[in-house]
Amino acid sequence: MNYPSKILEQAVNAIASLPGIGRKTALRLALHLIQDQNHKSEILVDALVQLNTKIKQCKRCNLVADNDICDICASTSRHKRVICVVENLRDLLAIEDTQQYNGLYHILGGVISPINGIGPENLYIESLIQRVKSEGVEELIMAVSPTIDGETTIFYISKLLADSNVKISTIARGVSFGGELEYADEFTLGRSILSRTPYHQNGSN
Amino acid sequence: MNYPSKILEQAVNAIASLPGIGRKTALRLALHLIQDQNHKSEILVDALVQLNTKIKQCKRCNLVADNDICDICASTSRHKRVICVVENLRDLLAIEDTQQYNGLYHILGGVISPINGIGPENLYIESLIQRVKSEGVEELIMAVSPTIDGETTIFYISKLLADSNVKISTIARGVSFGGELEYADEFTLGRSILSRTPYHQNGSN
Repeated sequence: MNYPSKILEQAVNAIASLPGIGRKTALRLALHLIQDQNHKSEILVDALVQLNTKIKQCKRCNLVADNDICDICASTSRHKRVICVVENLRDLLAIEDTQQYNGLYHILGGVISPINGIGPENLYIESLIQRVKSEGVEELIMAVSPTIDGETTIFYISKLLADSNVKISTIARGVSFGGELEYADEFTLGRSILSRTPYHQNGSN
Repeated sequence: MNYPSKILEQAVNAIASLPGIGRKTALRLALHLIQDQNHKSEILVDALVQLNTKIKQCKRCNLVADNDICDICASTSRHKRVICVVENLRDLLAIEDTQQYNGLYHILGGVISPINGIGPENLYIESLIQRVKSEGVEELIMAVSPTIDGETTIFYISKLLADSNVKISTIARGVSFGGELEYADEFTLGRSILSRTPYHQNGSN
Protein backbone atom coordinates (compact mmCIF):
# COMPACT_ATOMS: atom_id res chain seq x y z
CA MET A 1 0.00 0.00 0.00
CA ASN A 2 1.26 3.46 -0.88
CA TYR A 3 0.71 6.05 1.81
CA PRO A 4 0.06 9.65 0.83
CA SER A 5 2.37 10.95 3.56
CA LYS A 6 5.85 9.94 4.76
CA ILE A 7 4.97 10.94 8.33
CA LEU A 8 1.87 8.75 8.26
CA GLU A 9 3.88 5.89 6.76
CA GLN A 10 6.51 6.13 9.51
CA ALA A 11 3.80 6.08 12.17
CA VAL A 12 2.12 3.06 10.54
CA ASN A 13 5.47 1.26 10.37
CA ALA A 14 6.23 2.00 14.02
CA ILE A 15 2.81 0.87 15.22
CA ALA A 16 2.86 -2.24 13.00
CA SER A 17 6.22 -3.23 14.51
CA LEU A 18 4.36 -4.10 17.72
CA PRO A 19 3.50 -7.78 18.12
CA GLY A 20 0.05 -8.80 16.92
CA ILE A 21 -0.67 -5.52 15.11
CA GLY A 22 -0.86 -5.62 11.33
CA ARG A 23 -0.58 -2.76 8.88
CA LYS A 24 -4.34 -2.28 8.46
CA THR A 25 -4.84 -1.98 12.22
CA ALA A 26 -1.79 0.29 12.45
CA LEU A 27 -3.26 2.59 9.80
CA ARG A 28 -6.60 2.65 11.60
CA LEU A 29 -4.88 3.55 14.89
CA ALA A 30 -2.71 6.25 13.27
CA LEU A 31 -5.76 7.87 11.64
CA HIS A 32 -7.61 7.64 14.93
CA LEU A 33 -4.76 9.48 16.64
CA ILE A 34 -4.69 12.18 13.93
CA GLN A 35 -8.42 12.78 14.16
CA ASP A 36 -8.82 12.44 17.92
CA GLN A 37 -9.89 15.61 19.71
CA ASN A 38 -9.11 14.47 23.26
CA HIS A 39 -5.30 14.80 23.17
CA LYS A 40 -5.15 10.99 23.23
CA SER A 41 -1.99 11.08 21.19
CA GLU A 42 -0.21 13.46 23.60
CA ILE A 43 -1.29 11.33 26.56
CA LEU A 44 -0.04 8.20 24.81
CA VAL A 45 3.31 9.78 23.92
CA ASP A 46 3.72 11.03 27.47
CA ALA A 47 2.93 7.61 28.95
CA LEU A 48 5.39 5.91 26.57
CA VAL A 49 8.15 8.39 27.36
CA GLN A 50 7.63 7.73 31.08
CA LEU A 51 7.68 3.99 30.36
CA ASN A 52 10.95 4.45 28.44
CA THR A 53 12.73 6.59 30.95
CA LYS A 54 11.33 6.10 34.43
CA ILE A 55 10.33 2.49 34.82
CA LYS A 56 12.59 0.44 37.06
CA GLN A 57 13.03 -3.18 37.92
CA CYS A 58 12.66 -4.22 41.55
CA LYS A 59 16.12 -5.09 42.88
CA ARG A 60 14.71 -7.96 44.86
CA CYS A 61 12.07 -9.71 42.77
CA ASN A 62 12.69 -8.19 39.28
CA LEU A 63 9.12 -6.93 38.98
CA VAL A 64 8.65 -3.70 37.01
CA ALA A 65 8.37 -0.93 39.56
CA ASP A 66 8.31 2.82 40.05
CA ASN A 67 11.03 2.63 42.71
CA ASP A 68 14.09 0.49 43.43
CA ILE A 69 11.97 -1.88 45.48
CA CYS A 70 8.48 -2.76 44.22
CA ASP A 71 5.28 -2.23 46.20
CA ILE A 72 4.88 -5.96 46.82
CA CYS A 73 8.38 -6.38 48.28
CA ALA A 74 7.98 -3.16 50.26
CA SER A 75 4.56 -4.08 51.65
CA THR A 76 4.43 -4.64 55.40
CA SER A 77 1.29 -6.78 55.25
CA ARG A 78 2.71 -9.59 53.13
CA HIS A 79 4.25 -12.83 54.30
CA LYS A 80 8.00 -12.36 53.83
CA ARG A 81 9.14 -15.96 54.20
CA VAL A 82 7.24 -17.41 51.27
CA ILE A 83 8.38 -16.71 47.70
CA CYS A 84 6.35 -17.65 44.68
CA VAL A 85 8.65 -18.18 41.70
CA VAL A 86 7.12 -17.15 38.36
CA GLU A 87 8.39 -16.85 34.81
CA ASN A 88 7.16 -13.36 34.06
CA LEU A 89 5.05 -10.41 35.10
CA ARG A 90 1.90 -11.66 33.39
CA ASP A 91 1.94 -14.87 35.43
CA LEU A 92 2.52 -12.80 38.57
CA LEU A 93 -0.47 -10.58 37.80
CA ALA A 94 -2.63 -13.66 37.13
CA ILE A 95 -1.73 -15.05 40.56
CA GLU A 96 -2.30 -11.66 42.23
CA ASP A 97 -5.73 -11.52 40.65
CA THR A 98 -6.77 -14.76 42.37
CA GLN A 99 -6.30 -12.98 45.76
CA GLN A 100 -5.24 -16.37 47.16
CA TYR A 101 -1.60 -15.55 47.78
CA ASN A 102 -0.08 -13.11 50.20
CA GLY A 103 3.66 -13.81 50.05
CA LEU A 104 6.44 -12.36 47.92
CA TYR A 105 7.44 -13.19 44.36
CA HIS A 106 10.55 -13.82 42.32
CA ILE A 107 10.46 -13.35 38.56
CA LEU A 108 12.86 -15.70 36.75
CA GLY A 109 12.53 -14.09 33.34
CA GLY A 110 11.70 -17.43 31.72
CA VAL A 111 12.61 -21.08 32.17
CA ILE A 112 15.70 -23.08 31.27
CA SER A 113 15.27 -24.07 27.64
CA PRO A 114 18.31 -25.57 25.90
CA ILE A 115 16.47 -25.69 22.57
CA ASN A 116 15.98 -21.90 22.73
CA GLY A 117 19.49 -21.30 24.04
CA ILE A 118 18.27 -20.19 27.48
CA GLY A 119 20.51 -21.46 30.25
CA PRO A 120 20.44 -20.79 34.01
CA GLU A 121 22.85 -17.87 33.51
CA ASN A 122 20.20 -16.07 31.40
CA LEU A 123 17.66 -16.21 34.23
CA TYR A 124 17.42 -14.64 37.68
CA ILE A 125 18.26 -17.95 39.40
CA GLU A 126 21.47 -16.79 41.09
CA SER A 127 19.61 -13.91 42.78
CA LEU A 128 16.82 -16.28 43.85
CA ILE A 129 19.34 -18.54 45.61
CA GLN A 130 20.83 -15.47 47.31
CA ARG A 131 17.39 -14.35 48.47
CA VAL A 132 16.53 -17.77 49.87
CA LYS A 133 19.75 -17.76 51.87
CA SER A 134 19.72 -14.15 53.07
CA GLU A 135 15.98 -13.56 53.68
CA GLY A 136 15.28 -16.66 55.79
CA VAL A 137 12.80 -17.99 53.23
CA GLU A 138 10.80 -20.98 54.44
CA GLU A 139 8.95 -21.98 51.29
CA LEU A 140 9.43 -21.60 47.54
CA ILE A 141 6.28 -22.10 45.50
CA MET A 142 7.33 -22.97 41.96
CA ALA A 143 4.60 -21.50 39.73
CA VAL A 144 6.32 -22.06 36.39
CA SER A 145 4.61 -23.51 33.36
CA PRO A 146 3.94 -27.25 33.49
CA THR A 147 6.25 -28.16 30.60
CA ILE A 148 9.47 -30.13 30.28
CA ASP A 149 11.41 -26.84 30.44
CA GLY A 150 9.48 -25.80 33.55
CA GLU A 151 10.19 -29.14 35.22
CA THR A 152 13.87 -28.84 34.31
CA THR A 153 13.98 -25.39 35.90
CA ILE A 154 12.33 -26.62 39.10
CA PHE A 155 14.76 -29.56 39.24
CA TYR A 156 17.76 -27.28 38.68
CA ILE A 157 16.72 -24.85 41.41
CA SER A 158 15.91 -27.65 43.84
CA LYS A 159 19.40 -29.13 43.31
CA LEU A 160 21.02 -25.76 44.09
CA LEU A 161 18.99 -25.54 47.29
CA ALA A 162 19.46 -29.17 48.34
CA ASP A 163 21.58 -28.22 51.34
CA SER A 164 19.19 -25.54 52.63
CA ASN A 165 16.08 -26.12 54.74
CA VAL A 166 13.70 -24.36 52.35
CA LYS A 167 10.55 -26.29 51.46
CA ILE A 168 9.92 -26.39 47.71
CA SER A 169 6.42 -26.92 46.37
CA THR A 170 4.82 -26.68 42.96
CA ILE A 171 1.36 -25.36 42.22
CA ALA A 172 -1.18 -28.17 41.87
CA ARG A 173 -1.66 -29.55 38.40
CA GLY A 174 -4.80 -31.34 37.37
CA VAL A 175 -7.95 -30.94 35.37
CA SER A 176 -9.30 -27.40 35.19
CA PHE A 177 -12.26 -26.38 37.28
CA GLY A 178 -15.26 -26.77 34.98
CA GLY A 179 -13.24 -28.79 32.49
CA GLU A 180 -14.49 -32.05 31.02
CA LEU A 181 -12.41 -35.16 31.68
CA GLU A 182 -12.75 -36.55 28.19
CA TYR A 183 -11.07 -33.47 26.73
CA ALA A 184 -8.19 -33.32 29.23
CA ASP A 185 -4.89 -34.49 27.74
CA GLU A 186 -3.68 -37.85 29.01
CA PHE A 187 -0.60 -36.41 30.73
CA THR A 188 -2.67 -33.98 32.81
CA LEU A 189 -5.33 -36.58 33.56
CA GLY A 190 -2.74 -39.20 34.51
CA ARG A 191 -1.01 -36.77 36.82
CA SER A 192 -4.27 -35.65 38.39
CA ILE A 193 -4.97 -39.31 39.32
CA LEU A 194 -1.49 -39.77 40.77
CA SER A 195 -1.80 -36.50 42.71
CA ARG A 196 -5.34 -37.22 43.95
CA THR A 197 -6.26 -35.47 47.19
CA PRO A 198 -8.43 -36.74 50.07
CA TYR A 199 -12.05 -35.66 49.87
CA HIS A 200 -13.45 -33.55 52.70
CA GLN A 201 -17.22 -33.40 52.92
CA ASN A 202 -17.25 -29.89 54.33
CA GLY A 203 -15.06 -28.05 51.90
CA SER A 204 -12.78 -28.01 48.95
CA ASN A 205 -9.27 -29.41 48.90
CA MET B 1 -6.41 -5.93 37.67
CA ASN B 2 -3.93 -4.21 39.98
CA TYR B 3 -0.71 -3.13 38.35
CA PRO B 4 2.52 -3.13 40.33
CA SER B 5 3.57 0.22 38.90
CA LYS B 6 1.75 3.51 38.31
CA ILE B 7 3.86 4.21 35.24
CA LEU B 8 2.96 0.84 33.76
CA GLU B 9 -0.69 1.40 34.61
CA GLN B 10 -0.72 4.79 32.87
CA ALA B 11 0.86 3.26 29.78
CA VAL B 12 -1.67 0.42 29.77
CA ASN B 13 -4.53 2.92 30.14
CA ALA B 14 -3.21 5.07 27.30
CA ILE B 15 -2.72 2.11 24.95
CA ALA B 16 -6.09 0.60 25.89
CA SER B 17 -7.79 3.90 25.02
CA LEU B 18 -7.12 3.13 21.35
CA PRO B 19 -10.03 1.57 19.48
CA GLY B 20 -10.06 -2.21 19.35
CA ILE B 21 -7.30 -2.68 21.94
CA GLY B 22 -8.28 -4.19 25.27
CA ARG B 23 -6.41 -4.07 28.56
CA LYS B 24 -4.77 -7.49 28.16
CA THR B 25 -3.38 -6.57 24.75
CA ALA B 26 -2.33 -3.16 26.10
CA LEU B 27 -0.40 -4.82 28.93
CA ARG B 28 1.27 -7.21 26.49
CA LEU B 29 2.31 -4.27 24.27
CA ALA B 30 3.57 -2.19 27.22
CA LEU B 31 5.69 -5.10 28.49
CA HIS B 32 6.97 -5.70 24.97
CA LEU B 33 8.06 -2.06 24.80
CA ILE B 34 9.79 -2.26 28.19
CA GLN B 35 11.70 -5.39 27.24
CA ASP B 36 12.48 -4.51 23.65
CA GLN B 37 16.17 -4.03 22.87
CA ASN B 38 15.74 -2.40 19.46
CA HIS B 39 14.70 1.10 20.59
CA LYS B 40 11.24 0.30 19.25
CA SER B 41 9.69 2.46 21.92
CA GLU B 42 11.82 5.50 21.04
CA ILE B 43 11.03 5.03 17.35
CA LEU B 44 7.32 4.77 18.15
CA VAL B 45 7.36 7.87 20.35
CA ASP B 46 9.24 9.80 17.69
CA ALA B 47 6.78 8.75 14.96
CA LEU B 48 3.79 9.68 17.13
CA VAL B 49 5.27 13.09 17.97
CA GLN B 50 5.79 13.76 14.25
CA LEU B 51 2.22 12.61 13.61
CA ASN B 52 1.01 15.00 16.33
CA THR B 53 2.93 18.02 15.27
CA LYS B 54 3.86 17.88 11.60
CA ILE B 55 1.06 16.20 9.71
CA LYS B 56 -1.04 18.50 7.54
CA GLN B 57 -4.26 18.29 5.63
CA CYS B 58 -4.15 18.94 1.89
CA LYS B 59 -5.81 22.32 1.26
CA ARG B 60 -7.42 21.00 -1.89
CA CYS B 61 -8.60 17.45 -1.27
CA ASN B 62 -8.31 17.18 2.57
CA LEU B 63 -6.01 14.18 2.38
CA VAL B 64 -3.41 13.89 5.17
CA ALA B 65 -0.17 15.24 3.75
CA ASP B 66 3.35 16.31 4.61
CA ASN B 67 2.88 19.63 2.79
CA ASP B 68 0.06 22.10 2.18
CA ILE B 69 -0.81 20.30 -1.05
CA CYS B 70 -0.70 16.50 -1.07
CA ASP B 71 1.39 14.43 -3.48
CA ILE B 72 -1.69 13.35 -5.43
CA CYS B 73 -2.94 16.90 -6.03
CA ALA B 74 0.61 18.06 -6.81
CA SER B 75 1.31 15.22 -9.24
CA THR B 76 1.79 16.26 -12.85
CA SER B 77 0.90 12.84 -14.25
CA ARG B 78 -2.66 12.64 -12.94
CA HIS B 79 -5.83 13.64 -14.74
CA LYS B 80 -6.82 17.00 -13.20
CA ARG B 81 -10.39 17.23 -14.50
CA VAL B 82 -11.77 14.14 -12.83
CA ILE B 83 -12.42 14.09 -9.08
CA CYS B 84 -13.31 10.97 -7.18
CA VAL B 85 -15.33 11.87 -4.09
CA VAL B 86 -14.69 9.57 -1.11
CA GLU B 87 -15.73 9.56 2.52
CA ASN B 88 -12.35 9.07 4.10
CA LEU B 89 -8.68 8.28 3.65
CA ARG B 90 -9.15 4.51 3.96
CA ASP B 91 -11.55 4.45 1.02
CA LEU B 92 -9.10 6.60 -0.96
CA LEU B 93 -6.24 4.18 -0.26
CA ALA B 94 -8.43 1.23 -1.25
CA ILE B 95 -9.15 2.89 -4.61
CA GLU B 96 -5.48 3.82 -5.10
CA ASP B 97 -4.54 0.19 -4.48
CA THR B 98 -6.70 -0.93 -7.42
CA GLN B 99 -4.40 1.11 -9.74
CA GLN B 100 -7.50 1.69 -11.91
CA TYR B 101 -7.86 5.40 -11.27
CA ASN B 102 -5.60 8.25 -12.23
CA GLY B 103 -7.55 11.37 -11.39
CA LEU B 104 -7.75 13.53 -8.27
CA TYR B 105 -9.72 12.96 -5.08
CA HIS B 106 -11.89 14.90 -2.67
CA ILE B 107 -12.38 13.62 0.87
CA LEU B 108 -15.78 14.57 2.28
CA GLY B 109 -15.05 13.50 5.85
CA GLY B 110 -18.19 11.32 5.96
CA VAL B 111 -21.69 11.36 4.53
CA ILE B 112 -24.78 13.33 5.42
CA SER B 113 -26.44 11.43 8.25
CA PRO B 114 -29.29 13.21 10.09
CA ILE B 115 -29.58 10.35 12.59
CA ASN B 116 -25.95 10.92 13.63
CA GLY B 117 -26.32 14.69 13.55
CA ILE B 118 -24.06 15.08 10.51
CA GLY B 119 -25.28 17.75 8.11
CA PRO B 120 -23.73 19.15 4.93
CA GLU B 121 -22.05 21.88 7.01
CA ASN B 122 -20.00 19.22 8.86
CA LEU B 123 -18.55 17.88 5.62
CA TYR B 124 -16.20 19.28 2.97
CA ILE B 125 -19.04 19.79 0.50
CA GLU B 126 -18.71 23.57 0.16
CA SER B 127 -15.04 23.22 -0.83
CA LEU B 128 -15.93 20.47 -3.32
CA ILE B 129 -18.40 22.77 -5.05
CA GLN B 130 -15.74 25.51 -5.16
CA ARG B 131 -13.23 23.08 -6.69
CA VAL B 132 -15.67 21.93 -9.35
CA LYS B 133 -16.31 25.52 -10.33
CA SER B 134 -12.72 26.82 -10.17
CA GLU B 135 -10.74 23.84 -11.47
CA GLY B 136 -12.78 23.16 -14.60
CA VAL B 137 -13.75 19.69 -13.38
CA GLU B 138 -15.45 17.54 -16.03
CA GLU B 139 -16.46 14.53 -13.98
CA LEU B 140 -17.23 13.76 -10.36
CA ILE B 141 -17.09 10.07 -9.49
CA MET B 142 -19.11 9.55 -6.31
CA ALA B 143 -17.39 6.68 -4.49
CA VAL B 144 -19.33 6.94 -1.23
CA SER B 145 -20.78 3.97 0.60
CA PRO B 146 -23.92 2.45 -0.98
CA THR B 147 -26.25 3.31 1.89
CA ILE B 148 -29.24 5.59 2.32
CA ASP B 149 -26.91 8.23 3.81
CA GLY B 150 -24.52 7.83 0.89
CA GLU B 151 -27.37 8.20 -1.62
CA THR B 152 -28.61 11.29 0.24
CA THR B 153 -25.15 12.82 0.01
CA ILE B 154 -24.89 12.13 -3.72
CA PHE B 155 -28.35 13.63 -4.25
CA TYR B 156 -27.48 16.72 -2.20
CA ILE B 157 -24.24 17.35 -4.10
CA SER B 158 -25.89 16.74 -7.47
CA LYS B 159 -28.57 19.34 -6.62
CA LEU B 160 -25.91 21.93 -5.75
CA LEU B 161 -24.20 21.27 -9.09
CA ALA B 162 -27.38 21.13 -11.16
CA ASP B 163 -26.50 24.34 -13.03
CA SER B 164 -22.95 23.30 -13.85
CA ASN B 165 -21.85 21.10 -16.72
CA VAL B 166 -20.01 18.56 -14.57
CA LYS B 167 -20.87 14.95 -15.23
CA ILE B 168 -21.68 13.06 -12.04
CA SER B 169 -21.28 9.29 -11.90
CA THR B 170 -21.36 6.71 -9.13
CA ILE B 171 -19.15 3.65 -8.87
CA ALA B 172 -20.89 0.54 -10.19
CA ARG B 173 -22.85 -1.46 -7.65
CA GLY B 174 -23.64 -5.09 -8.14
CA VAL B 175 -22.67 -8.54 -7.00
CA SER B 176 -19.03 -8.88 -5.98
CA PHE B 177 -16.56 -10.52 -8.29
CA GLY B 178 -16.41 -14.16 -7.17
CA GLY B 179 -19.56 -13.76 -5.07
CA GLU B 180 -22.41 -16.25 -5.18
CA LEU B 181 -25.78 -14.93 -6.28
CA GLU B 182 -27.75 -16.86 -3.68
CA TYR B 183 -25.89 -15.05 -0.89
CA ALA B 184 -26.19 -11.54 -2.35
CA ASP B 185 -28.74 -9.40 -0.52
CA GLU B 186 -31.91 -8.73 -2.47
CA PHE B 187 -31.29 -4.98 -2.75
CA THR B 188 -27.87 -5.48 -4.34
CA LEU B 189 -29.13 -8.26 -6.60
CA GLY B 190 -32.19 -6.26 -7.65
CA ARG B 191 -30.04 -3.27 -8.47
CA SER B 192 -27.53 -5.36 -10.39
CA ILE B 193 -30.36 -6.57 -12.62
CA LEU B 194 -31.68 -3.05 -13.17
CA SER B 195 -28.14 -1.78 -13.91
CA ARG B 196 -27.26 -4.68 -16.19
CA THR B 197 -24.61 -3.90 -18.79
CA PRO B 198 -24.35 -5.13 -22.38
CA TYR B 199 -22.15 -8.17 -22.83
CA HIS B 200 -19.12 -7.88 -25.09
CA GLN B 201 -17.63 -11.13 -26.27
CA ASN B 202 -14.11 -9.74 -26.42
CA GLY B 203 -13.76 -8.13 -23.02
CA SER B 204 -15.18 -7.33 -19.66
CA ASN B 205 -17.65 -4.54 -19.00
